[in-house]
Amino acid sequence: MKVFDLAQPMRKGMPQSPNHPAYTHSLVRRHGDMVRAGGGSAANDLLVMGTHVGTHVDALAHVSQDGLLHGGVVAADVQSDAGFARLGIDEFPPFVGRGVLLDVARVHGVEVLPPGYEVTAGDLSAASGDLTINPGDAVLIGTGWSRHFQDGQTFLGTRDGVPGPGVDAARWLAEREIAVTGAETIAYEHIAPGAGHASLPVHRILLVGAGINIVETMLLSELADASVTEFQFILAPLKLVGATGSPVRPLAVVP
Amino acid sequence: MKVFDLAQPMRKGMPQSPNHPAYTHSLVRRHGDMVRAGGGSAANDLLVMGTHVGTHVDALAHVSQDGLLHGGVVAADVQSDAGFARLGIDEFPPFVGRGVLLDVARVHGVEVLPPGYEVTAGDLSAASGDLTINPGDAVLIGTGWSRHFQDGQTFLGTRDGVPGPGVDAARWLAEREIAVTGAETIAYEHIAPGAGHASLPVHRILLVGAGINIVETMLLSELADASVTEFQFILAPLKLVGATGSPVRPLAVVP
Amino acid sequence: MKVFDLAQPMRKGMPQSPNHPAYTHSLVRRHGDMVRAGGGSAANDLLVMGTHVGTHVDALAHVSQDGLLHGGVVAADVQSDAGFARLGIDEFPPFVGRGVLLDVARVHGVEVLPPGYEVTAGDLSAASGDLTINPGDAVLIGTGWSRHFQDGQTFLGTRDGVPGPGVDAARWLAEREIAVTGAETIAYEHIAPGAGHASLPVHRILLVGAGINIVETMLLSELADASVTEFQFILAPLKLVGATGSPVRPLAVVP
Amino acid sequence: MKVFDLAQPMRKGMPQSPNHPAYTHSLVRRHGDMVRAGGGSAANDLLVMGTHVGTHVDALAHVSQDGLLHGGVVAADVQSDAGFARLGIDEFPPFVGRGVLLDVARVHGVEVLPPGYEVTAGDLSAASGDLTINPGDAVLIGTGWSRHFQDGQTFLGTRDGVPGPGVDAARWLAEREIAVTGAETIAYEHIAPGAGHASLPVHRILLVGAGINIVETMLLSELADASVTEFQFILAPLKLVGATGSPVRPLAVVP
Repeated sequence: MKVFDLAQPMRKGMPQSPNHPAYTHSLVRRHGDMVRAGGGSAANDLLVMGTHVGTHVDALAHVSQDGLLHGGVVAADVQSDAGFARLGIDEFPPFVGRGVLLDVARVHGVEVLPPGYEVTAGDLSAASGDLTINPGDAVLIGTGWSRHFQDGQTFLGTRDGVPGPGVDAARWLAEREIAVTGAETIAYEHIAPGAGHASLPVHRILLVGAGINIVETMLLSELADASVTEFQFILAPLKLVGATGSPVRPLAVVP
Repeated sequence: MKVFDLAQPMRKGMPQSPNHPAYTHSLVRRHGDMVRAGGGSAANDLLVMGTHVGTHVDALAHVSQDGLLHGGVVAADVQSDAGFARLGIDEFPPFVGRGVLLDVARVHGVEVLPPGYEVTAGDLSAASGDLTINPGDAVLIGTGWSRHFQDGQTFLGTRDGVPGPGVDAARWLAEREIAVTGAETIAYEHIAPGAGHASLPVHRILLVGAGINIVETMLLSELADASVTEFQFILAPLKLVGATGSPVRPLAVVP
Repeated sequence: MKVFDLAQPMRKGMPQSPNHPAYTHSLVRRHGDMVRAGGGSAANDLLVMGTHVGTHVDALAHVSQDGLLHGGVVAADVQSDAGFARLGIDEFPPFVGRGVLLDVARVHGVEVLPPGYEVTAGDLSAASGDLTINPGDAVLIGTGWSRHFQDGQTFLGTRDGVPGPGVDAARWLAEREIAVTGAETIAYEHIAPGAGHASLPVHRILLVGAGINIVETMLLSELADASVTEFQFILAPLKLVGATGSPVRPLAVVP
Repeated sequence: MKVFDLAQPMRKGMPQSPNHPAYTHSLVRRHGDMVRAGGGSAANDLLVMGTHVGTHVDALAHVSQDGLLHGGVVAADVQSDAGFARLGIDEFPPFVGRGVLLDVARVHGVEVLPPGYEVTAGDLSAASGDLTINPGDAVLIGTGWSRHFQDGQTFLGTRDGVPGPGVDAARWLAEREIAVTGAETIAYEHIAPGAGHASLPVHRILLVGAGINIVETMLLSELADASVTEFQFILAPLKLVGATGSPVRPLAVVP
């Protein structure tokens, strides 16, 4: 059995969306600050962060269209200082099931797709090859973009864009009634050069329309390098009651 | 296949150790605050919390004895504003392997062990029954204490104590060279009535001595109710570089 | 010239209202963590806190009645993730002007008024003695409660209540068209034993009705001990755009 | 009497040093989230920030040289998770006294000094003109840089530098035994184009050597526009026990 770790490391200064509170880790108490009678000491820390930082899952509550969440839930009725009474990340049941990697970079014979490249339904179809996509599957889209994570400017793609699924790719996935999907970029969208995250058509199709959760900023390059396309996928976000998302440590397990 | 969720829900006000920054979730941006041109809107939130809140894993860096961490690492040499350069939670490889539940409450014919009860090596031996404990296993100790989670005063046990493994139980586990262990209480310790968390002998044996990570505040009552004692255990803490622990969503999978 | 410091010290664990995020100070970077080429080093810290912690000022945006803020402003129209577009603490102009201390404890011949004591209009009138209260003044009410600040349980008064102005005292102040008022307790209210902060009639009269800002958790005992009743009062809250309040360091200056 | 507000507004996204946790204000509870029986409602918020954000004062504990703070205090001996036991901002007594503005921009006949301009002792001498600088005064240095606050890129001066006092200007001030000094830029230093905040010679002279506190990111343009050079200066930082600095709302009062 081999376990692939599909999460990027979380550290201060890592690339993340400017729309969300930045990830910060502070070592508050250090060893030696307060030593107990027997010579023991405990250190601890403080996290301050948004829920959409690092590798993370979007809850269905994250995006609305014309004031409505998935299933026609009126956003204004379910949001308060207690978070979301419906469709928060705590309603996402931990996923343990079949996962497939659709390696679109490999289809194009490259390690990394160019910035601003729009992944199409045709790309997904080509990448799936002989694999069947079943209802309830987890589908991960490989663009190779994980390889840029250490280079924040490139990874964010503010100037040149980032590769990602376009509208017809999102529809292709929604038609297959998958349970969850993920990709390597900050936003699971095709971002044209200079366009920014102003519009989120794919989030609308998947989260609001189809009720399919999205995982972002995944580390998929190791899976791609190993040519693994089918695996047991494990996705267990923190049980944050009423939150719009959660950081997560997804795993792929192969026999 | 059945998946058991072994995490308690995380919400403001849940019981946690006063030694750690309290868990707080704030819904910062609500739907309607900023509606995009096409009618879409995104909500997001802010988390402020310690790393030892809710169901969580202790990193080996969490506890030192006489200034030393596990393996004789000098704590002062590896701690800084960047966290721990060694033995942080990011060094814990995601665990996917055999887990066993040693249901000590069942051994005693009760749903919940009394506050302040010390779990002994004899209890663990009796609870394991025909099960073998192998090196590299995950061993979870059932006390029934999960059932008090909604009653914070009782759960914390400030007055009456909490049940947990004593020193000889910890040695019994260390001798078996298990990989990780977990329990239902705030601290993986036996806390006598009125004693507080002043001394942490079991943390010393497991974290500092044996290099065995500890999971605390687990939800084990559903597993106990289903009489599941052997399962695939999944423990994938957030990849928080240099942190002394991480909240987590552990899972038990049975065929 | 003598300057009286009217703020309580801010430190982790100080008594504060459970309705607000707790004050936390973390020393994030210590000297030695990152030493510059020339041997210099800078330390820094992180604050996490509500705006109604320690000695603080309430903005007019803090309280609404039937959905309306002071002056009939519709709360729902001016609140968003950017804070309050109207009546935030940034609209409070720094106050430098006449301040008077109405020492009600002295009127009753005690150092500290009993828990749960309701300060009346008659008390304020008696305490003012020969002093005239002018429109635009700052009026501080002395109860002696500052002296309990180091004893959090007593100070919060959860069981026995706290002394404070009742409804007719608030009206007495509002009629005098003062600019701002302050007191020593967590909430500028009379809290009967066991009653908690469930209802805030005085906040309603002062903030919503009269547009008079409130300062809470002040240190007034030194002023009272020195028998100072008239002074230059300085109140300069942080210019937190859109916030419902701000911690502050009020001063009383006497020639 | 006229009161000049010498603080910049604090809002998310304002320019600040990347060395410190960013200022964030979140409106956590909004009106309507929890309406009390009588129709009243209270809103509140959460601040997360460094202590060196917006207009702020540096405590003497902020900077060390060769491991020593001002007066030879060994930094390692006084720093812990409780902050600084000595020389924290809580040891700075609120300042109410004589303040002078040395308007160096005016000396040069400009509204704003060029980026990267080094303010010299000669500049300070020329700007003081007929004014005497007395021991215990507060001395503010005008560069006009406040006027760039709304333009974060220019204000930070990452590319082109920022104007500020050089080493001989700092010595000139230290010789005069002033109590506190302030300026309009992020760091009270001369930053050459492209140089960054790598070295802080002026902090060393003032904080470590002379024990003179520094105020940064002040709003001085209104004072300069009004040609006010002498005033009552009020500086009352929050009483943050053990912190390396504090945000502040300084005032200048003229008769």
